[in-house]
Amino acid sequence: MPGGAEFSFATWMAAALSKVEQALERWVVAPQVAQMAPDLPRAMRYAVLDGGKRLRPLLVLAAQEACVAQAGTLGATSEAALRAACAVELIHAYSLVHDDMPCMDNDVLRRGKPTVHVEFGQATALLAGDALQALAFELLTPAEQDIDPVIQARLCAQLARAAGHGGMAGGQAIDLAHVGRSLKRAELQRMHELKTGALLQGSVVMGALCGAADAHAVAGLTAYGAAIGLAFQVVDDVLDVTADSATLGKTAGKDAHANKPTYVSTMGLQASQRYAHTLLLQAEKALRDSGLRETRALQALARMVVERAH
Amino acid sequence: MPGGAEFSFATWMAAALSKVEQALERWVVAPQVAQMAPDLPRAMRYAVLDGGKRLRPLLVLAAQEACVAQAGTLGATSEAALRAACAVELIHAYSLVHDDMPCMDNDVLRRGKPTVHVEFGQATALLAGDALQALAFELLTPAEQDIDPVIQARLCAQLARAAGHGGMAGGQAIDLAHVGRSLKRAELQRMHELKTGALLQGSVVMGALCGAADAHAVAGLTAYGAAIGLAFQVVDDVLDVTADSATLGKTAGKDAHANKPTYVSTMGLQASQRYAHTLLLQAEKALRDSGLRETRALQALARMVVERAH
Repeated sequence: MPGGAEFSFATWMAAALSKVEQALERWVVAPQVAQMAPDLPRAMRYAVLDGGKRLRPLLVLAAQEACVAQAGTLGATSEAALRAACAVELIHAYSLVHDDMPCMDNDVLRRGKPTVHVEFGQATALLAGDALQALAFELLTPAEQDIDPVIQARLCAQLARAAGHGGMAGGQAIDLAHVGRSLKRAELQRMHELKTGALLQGSVVMGALCGAADAHAVAGLTAYGAAIGLAFQVVDDVLDVTADSATLGKTAGKDAHANKPTYVSTMGLQASQRYAHTLLLQAEKALRDSGLRETRALQALARMVVERAH
Repeated sequence: MPGGAEFSFATWMAAALSKVEQALERWVVAPQVAQMAPDLPRAMRYAVLDGGKRLRPLLVLAAQEACVAQAGTLGATSEAALRAACAVELIHAYSLVHDDMPCMDNDVLRRGKPTVHVEFGQATALLAGDALQALAFELLTPAEQDIDPVIQARLCAQLARAAGHGGMAGGQAIDLAHVGRSLKRAELQRMHELKTGALLQGSVVMGALCGAADAHAVAGLTAYGAAIGLAFQVVDDVLDVTADSATLGKTAGKDAHANKPTYVSTMGLQASQRYAHTLLLQAEKALRDSGLRETRALQALARMVVERAH
C-alpha cells in the first residue's frame, strides 16, 4: 500500500479485487474429477466465482499490508496473504451453499442467481460445500511454495477455529436452535460473534499473521475485527427490513418472515442503526490504538461495512 | 511397539483403540455452544463416539510406530500421531453423516443406530458434519502443544488433499455421477482410489510424517496405503452382497439395489474376492520393500481389512 496523502480506496480495492478474482479463478479447480464428475468443479466455481463482495479477502489483504507497511517484508508474505484471502472466501462460499439448502434456509436466490442446489441438485451442493472447505486448507498449505510452514500452521489453526464449532458452524447451530424463540441481546450478540464475526475477525487476524505483525498490532486488529464483525451483522439485519430483494441479490425480509431473532427485532430499527455507527467508531479507535501507521484501507473497509446498501 | 517375537496384535490394537477412544471423548466437544446449541456437540459426539472400527486411526498409529522404531524419537511425535489419528476419524465420521442424508444415500441405519439426521434432523446433521471437518484441522494445529509447526503444516496439507476434491469428496462426486450407469474397471478403480483410498492412504502417510520417516519408508508406506485402500473397497463391495444388515450394522445390499457400479457388478463375486487377496499380497510386499523392520501391526491391519466380516 502506498504511503502519503494520495491514497485512493477505490484504486486500492480495484487492484485487490483483481488479484483475488484471478487467484480464485486459478485455484478453484478440481482437475482429478473434471472428466468423471464435471458437476463438482462446476458447482464449486459457480458458488465462488462471479459474485460476492469479497469483504473477507479484502480484510486479509488490507490487514497484511498494514502490518507489512510497519515491519517491511512484503515479498515473502504477499503470496501467503493471497492464499489466506482466497481460503476465507472459500469458507464463506461453502457456508452459503449449505445454508441455502432446503434443510436449512431453503433459499433459491443468491447474488441474483439460482442457488447451488437449485442449479446442480442437493447432493452436488452438499459435496461442493464439503470440497470447498477442504480446498481452503489446501490453499493454505501449498506443496511447492515458499511460504514458511510456521505461517501455514498458524493460518490453518486460525481458519479451523473461525470456521468450526467455536466459530461459524457453532453460530449457525445457535441460530438454528432459536428460530421462533426470542433471544436476549447478549445471546443474540454471542450468536453473531460466532456466526459472522468469527470469520470476519479471523480474516483480519490471518492478514496480520501473514504480515508478521507484532503482538500490539495483532491485539488492535483483533479488536477492529470484533467490531466490524458485529457491525456487519447489525447492518445485515437492518438491510433485511429496509432493502428490497433486487438490491440485496437475495430474498429480503426472510429473517423476519422466518421469525428469527435479529438486532432489529430485539433493539428496534433506529437503535440498530445507531449501534452500527457506534461499532464503526470502536473499529476506528482500535486501529488508532494498534500502533499501525497505514490503516486507510482498513478504515475504508469498516465504513464500507456500515454504510453498504446490500 | 515392542520388538522381538512376543508381538500380539490383539494387545497392540486394544491399547491403540483405548488411546484413540479416550482422545476422541476428550476432543470432540464444543464448549462455546454447549449452552445455546447443545444439539451440535451432541450430534458431533453421536457421529464419532461409541462406534466404528477406527481403522484409519489405527493405520496412523501403526505407521507412526513403525517409523519411530526405525528412527527413534517416540516422545515428541506420539502426541502428533494421536491428533492425526483422531483428525482422520473426524473426516471419516463427517463423510458418513453427510452421505447418509436424504439427498445422498438416504440411509437410516449406521453402526446399528439411527443415522445422525434421523436422530437430530437434517439441518443439525449438515452442521455437525461441517463442524467435524473443521475440528479435524483444529486438532492438527494445537495452540499450546509441543508439536513442530512444520509437522502441523504437512499434516494439514495431507489431510486437506485426502478429504477434498482430489480425494474423498471428489470420489463421492464420481460415485454420484454414475448411479445407474456402468463403469469400466479402470474408472471404478479411479473412483474408489479417491472415495475411500485417499483417506486410508492419507492416514498411513500422516502416520509416517509423525514418525519422521525417511523418503524410502514414505514411498513404501504410500504403496502399502494404496493397496489396502483399494482392498478395503473391494471387500466392502463383496460384503454388500454376502453379509446381512445385522452383521454389517448398516443396510446390506444397498449398493446393488441403488444400481451402483461395484467390483462385484463389474468383475463378479469370485474375481473380486481373488482381487482382494492379490491386493493384500501387494500391501505385504510394499512393507517388505519399505526398509522398515517392525511392521507387524501394519501387516495385521492389512489382513484385518481383507478378512473382516463387516
